[in-house]
Amino acid sequence: MAKRISILGSTGSIGCQTLDVIKDYPEEFQVLALTGRKNVSLLAQQVKTFQPELAVLTDPEAARQLSRLLHGQTTRVLAGEEGLLAAATYPGTDLLVTAVVGFAGLKPTLAAIDAGIDIALANKETLVTAGSIVMQRARERKVDIIPIDSEHSAIFQCLQGNEPGDLQRIMLTASGGPFRNYSKEELAGVSPEQALKHPNWSMGAKITVDSATMMNKGLEVLEAHWLFPLPLTSIEVLVHPQSVVHSLIEFKDGSILAQLGPPDMRFPILYSLTYPKRWSNNLPKLDLVGRELAFTAPDLERFPCLAYAYEAGEKGGTMPTVVNAANEMAVAAFLQKKIGFLDIPRVIRQVMDLHQVRKNPDLDAIFSADTWARQETQGIIRTISGIS
Amino acid sequence: MAKRISILGSTGSIGCQTLDVIKDYPEEFQVLALTGRKNVSLLAQQVKTFQPELAVLTDPEAARQLSRLLHGQTTRVLAGEEGLLAAATYPGTDLLVTAVVGFAGLKPTLAAIDAGIDIALANKETLVTAGSIVMQRARERKVDIIPIDSEHSAIFQCLQGNEPGDLQRIMLTASGGPFRNYSKEELAGVSPEQALKHPNWSMGAKITVDSATMMNKGLEVLEAHWLFPLPLTSIEVLVHPQSVVHSLIEFKDGSILAQLGPPDMRFPILYSLTYPKRWSNNLPKLDLVGRELAFTAPDLERFPCLAYAYEAGEKGGTMPTVVNAANEMAVAAFLQKKIGFLDIPRVIRQVMDLHQVRKNPDLDAIFSADTWARQETQGIIRTISGIS
Repeated sequence: MAKRISILGSTGSIGCQTLDVIKDYPEEFQVLALTGRKNVSLLAQQVKTFQPELAVLTDPEAARQLSRLLHGQTTRVLAGEEGLLAAATYPGTDLLVTAVVGFAGLKPTLAAIDAGIDIALANKETLVTAGSIVMQRARERKVDIIPIDSEHSAIFQCLQGNEPGDLQRIMLTASGGPFRNYSKEELAGVSPEQALKHPNWSMGAKITVDSATMMNKGLEVLEAHWLFPLPLTSIEVLVHPQSVVHSLIEFKDGSILAQLGPPDMRFPILYSLTYPKRWSNNLPKLDLVGRELAFTAPDLERFPCLAYAYEAGEKGGTMPTVVNAANEMAVAAFLQKKIGFLDIPRVIRQVMDLHQVRKNPDLDAIFSADTWARQETQGIIRTISGIS
Repeated sequence: MAKRISILGSTGSIGCQTLDVIKDYPEEFQVLALTGRKNVSLLAQQVKTFQPELAVLTDPEAARQLSRLLHGQTTRVLAGEEGLLAAATYPGTDLLVTAVVGFAGLKPTLAAIDAGIDIALANKETLVTAGSIVMQRARERKVDIIPIDSEHSAIFQCLQGNEPGDLQRIMLTASGGPFRNYSKEELAGVSPEQALKHPNWSMGAKITVDSATMMNKGLEVLEAHWLFPLPLTSIEVLVHPQSVVHSLIEFKDGSILAQLGPPDMRFPILYSLTYPKRWSNNLPKLDLVGRELAFTAPDLERFPCLAYAYEAGEKGGTMPTVVNAANEMAVAAFLQKKIGFLDIPRVIRQVMDLHQVRKNPDLDAIFSADTWARQETQGIIRTISGIS
């Protein structure tokens, strides 16, 4: 029987690549529900190709347009957060791919876990902001959380067949982004257009800017901390500009395992869909002949976002939620040219300094902290963009 | 209860390093039997430290000396091949480390398998010459063959928790030896002293010369072919001068796993002793910061031994036995300065060309082929050393 898949965020980069993978296995996969924000034409096209039972656009006006476009077809159309939750918990779903960007992924992911649906997780902010709640509910409901991020997929693959207790150290690799070799002065003048050109990976806008500031790696450190049972001090970042080694783990006997592959998200996406199996595919494979793979330590002075993420993880409680919210707002403001590239860490730092950490927050406290941080960040951004 | 270990070839490089590992875990391991060829003083010292129940020197005169030295002690002393077989099948042995060099390891390894004893295999010639017989008997007796060679240990570790049928490609790494960048002219003048200086690994004399000619990698390709279910065409060699990535495997989905560690045999030795567990240890660990790892294709023109090994594997039957025997003799002659460095592949080629392959050989046919090849090789060496 075909595996029944739903995708939250099917019109985004990971969502599109997931459908690209799925279309090569028409007998093996069935698509039940797809969701987007407001890209009517792309979702309509996906509906035509994959014939899901449910299509959702969270923007109500866009959903109305989609509904008109799909008039007479069997696919049901829903709107808003209500629609998103309906897609996340769609009856009969075997695996939910959570590929929405940012904090918006938290509620539907939790709803899917509560419904007992396995998760292929591309929305790292879910674990960054509410890792303890999400992982505990997943354990209670015996739901698999299979990471899609190439780094976490690498670690997950290396851990198969090994005792989790033998894991001693994680080395998350980082391309270092497009500005790896920029001076502080050069970083100050970086434009959104420059930040959106990632040297190795094809990804969405928000994560590409996060890669350039290295906040992406910081969020990944926090994500790894929840997915794999290690303290933050045992999770290191290695700058590896070739993006061929996707991450490494060290066991207590000193043996290191690494996972490698071309920098193509379709590999970890396919693995998340087929886990624990591996399926043959037509994607171009990695040839190591003639390759040089380099590893260096990250520069926390030029890329303070990484240090802030570690600091947020150590402080715990609501602080990671606050850092994530401040980062989302700051990146959006940078993309709208309201603030400069180096204002991103500056804004985050200021919000962190203003925040009173609440320990062991419940879901309400996490949502309050997120809302508080967004308001504070907006104020700080307004001040900066007013001056500049 | 302590794990009971016996070691064939305890006075060699791997044997000594195995005891070096064992001595850090006095409660966890008990040494039952140790064997050497004729190093009386070293074996006597090992007996004093590890108090085995049996000590063997295959050289009868050396065994007599050891017997006198150990007079009044509880350790029994035996000599000759009879002693070696007694050590290999010593009652109560949980794991036999086969660290003798060359074809001499075959008989005792088979005897241990027949006695139902798990094998930690450092003697690759056993599989090169009689892989089909050895692996079939191991399957019949449900005996584990745990590789000690760092490359095969790496593959073995990467395969844990994965389906053997998903394995698509093996990439065996090779340091390339001390003469990796030598021209053919420079290779012609290489002395035994130069060949014995390996850039990365501390190993015995025979295997160090084999590394310099790359025959070691050829034998490892044949060994991998028996240990792991892949045709020779799916087993590649990658020159990797840093000896940090010990080998890699590719699954059918294109995902590659690699095992890394310092170039220190004590890591794979410890793993073979503790498998399927991993034990903490005090060995210096690998730091990847500041490292560059390079991978290139081997040069089969300057290092024809590697090509000869593949050819022997493809021809099959008795041909690998013949190549192994010719190589053992040629390396010994080179170390005695009877022939030059480039004469090693020349001698092997001549013996290969003279050999009529016997398909599906039984053990007798393998021993005959070995004897035949040694006689032929000796004749060829005599001719060369007489001329030069």
